[in-house]
Amino acid sequence: MLIDGRKIADEIFTELAERVKQLLKPLRLAAVLVGENPGLRKFVELKKSAAQKAGIDFRTYEFPASITTQELRKKVVEISKAQINSGVLVELPLPPHINTQYILNAIPEEKDVDVLSQKSQGAFFTNRSQILPPAVEAVKTIFKKHGIEVKGKNCAVFGYGLLVGKPISHWLAQQGATVSIITEHTLDPKPYILSADIIVSGVGKPNLITAEMVREGAIVIDFGYERQAGSGEPVAAIAGDVDFEAVSQRVSLITPVPGGVGPIVIASVLKNLVELSK
Amino acid sequence: MLIDGRKIADEIFTELAERVKQLLKPLRLAAVLVGENPGLRKFVELKKSAAQKAGIDFRTYEFPASITTQELRKKVVEISKAQINSGVLVELPLPPHINTQYILNAIPEEKDVDVLSQKSQGAFFTNRSQILPPAVEAVKTIFKKHGIEVKGKNCAVFGYGLLVGKPISHWLAQQGATVSIITEHTLDPKPYILSADIIVSGVGKPNLITAEMVREGAIVIDFGYERQAGSGEPVAAIAGDVDFEAVSQRVSLITPVPGGVGPIVIASVLKNLVELSK
Repeated sequence: MLIDGRKIADEIFTELAERVKQLLKPLRLAAVLVGENPGLRKFVELKKSAAQKAGIDFRTYEFPASITTQELRKKVVEISKAQINSGVLVELPLPPHINTQYILNAIPEEKDVDVLSQKSQGAFFTNRSQILPPAVEAVKTIFKKHGIEVKGKNCAVFGYGLLVGKPISHWLAQQGATVSIITEHTLDPKPYILSADIIVSGVGKPNLITAEMVREGAIVIDFGYERQAGSGEPVAAIAGDVDFEAVSQRVSLITPVPGGVGPIVIASVLKNLVELSK
Repeated sequence: MLIDGRKIADEIFTELAERVKQLLKPLRLAAVLVGENPGLRKFVELKKSAAQKAGIDFRTYEFPASITTQELRKKVVEISKAQINSGVLVELPLPPHINTQYILNAIPEEKDVDVLSQKSQGAFFTNRSQILPPAVEAVKTIFKKHGIEVKGKNCAVFGYGLLVGKPISHWLAQQGATVSIITEHTLDPKPYILSADIIVSGVGKPNLITAEMVREGAIVIDFGYERQAGSGEPVAAIAGDVDFEAVSQRVSLITPVPGGVGPIVIASVLKNLVELSK
C-alpha cells in the first residue's frame, strides 16, 4: 500500500489552520537560507506554500554563501529575537566553512521548530522535549495512521545523520523497537535489512535498497536524502533511496518519493511551530 | 584474552594523581546517595577509594529514601553551588517517586562528571561535549589499549538505558560502526548477536548471553547492570550478563565481572572530574 504523504499533509494543514485561527496572535515562520543552491531554495518554497495553507506567515532571510560563521550567528540571533518570528529554522546543509551546530544553537528552544539546537537535542534525547524532530513526528504520524505498533519490531535505519537517522534511531529504540543502524561503513547490510519489519532510509543514494534485500510485507519509509551538515553535496533533486518500482511490489506499506514522507515532514515543522506557540 | 579492568584503572589513577598534583587547587568529588540500598552504598565506597588513589577528596551526601523531588533538587543545587565540590554525581537509581532527570539537571555542565544532565546530554549527542559519559570513556579506553578499530564493525548493544546502552549506541554509530540495539522486547536477538564483532551488554540479567549465541573471536564488554532510573530494583550484587565461563572460551577479548569494565568506569568518572577542572 502506498502512503499518500500529500493527503496526510493536507489533513494536517487543515487542522493547523483551525488551531491557528483560535490563537490570539498571528504566527510567522522564519527560514534562513544561505547560498544559491536551487535544491535548498525549492525546500524553502515548499515550506512557504505549506505555511500559507496552514494560515502561517512565512519569511525567508537570505545570505550569501560567503558569510562567516560569526556573521551568520549574529543574524540568526537577531532573527530569533524578533518577536514577529514565532519559529526559526535554518535550511541545511550550510556551506562547509560554517560551524553548523554553533549556528543552530543560536535558536532558543521555544522557537526551534526543527529541534536541532544543542539544548533542544538535550531535551529530545532525555525524552523531555515538548515537540519531536520533524522526521520523527512524520514517522510517528504515519505509524499512528496505519495502526503500526513499534514495540518489538525489527527496524533497519539507513544513515545516521542529524535530520533523519540519529533522531529516528533514538526514538525507535525508546519505543521498544530493535534498531539496527546501518551506514556507509557497513560491510554487509543484507542480514539486518532482511530481518527488518520496518526500514527507514535517510541517505541520498538512489537504488541503495533493492527488492531482493527487502523482506516480504515490510514497511518502508524512504526519506531519500539526508542533508547532512557540511556534506557539501548539492541538493539538486528530490530522490529516494529505494528502487521503488520493484520494492513496492513486495512490501506492505511504502512512501514514494516525492509525495511520501517529505510533505509530512514539512507539515510537522508547522505543527511544531503551533505547538510551541500554544 | 581477559581484560584486566583493575590494572587499567590503576594505571589511570596513577596518571590522574600526577595531573591532580600539578593543579593549583584540591579537587573534591561529591556523591549524592539516597536511601539505604547496600548495593548503591558499595558503589559509592568503590568511588571513594578510587578517588583516594587519584589524590581526589570525596564526600558523600546522604538523604533518606523518603525525600521529595523538590527537596532533593534543592539539595543537589546547593551541593553543586558549593565551590569546594569540583564535581557532583548522583548515585542511580533514585527511588521511583523521584523525577530523576529533574534532579540530574540540577548539576551544571562544568561539574557533571557523569554527563547526565539534559544540557550535558545535549552536548554529548551533538558531539560537542568536552568529556564522554563514563561508560563510553571506559569502552573507548579498552578499544584504544587493544588497538580495536570501531569503524565498519558490527556491534550488538544489549539494553538502551541511561548509563550504558543509550550513550554507547550513539558513540558507536558516530564512530562508523553498524549498531544493533537489542532490548527486552526483541523477539529473537540471535541473528544480531551472531553477526556481531563487538557485543556490549548493560542489562542486569545473568546468563543472558550464552556461548552458542556468540561468534568465535568476538569482543565482549559486559557492564552487567544498568541501574536504570526508576527501575526500583535493588542493586544487591555486581553480576554480569554473560555466561562467562563458556563464552570466554570462544571470544578474543572479554571483560569479567567483577574486575572488568566496572573499575574503568569509575576511573573514567575521576578522569572526567580532572578534565573539567583543567
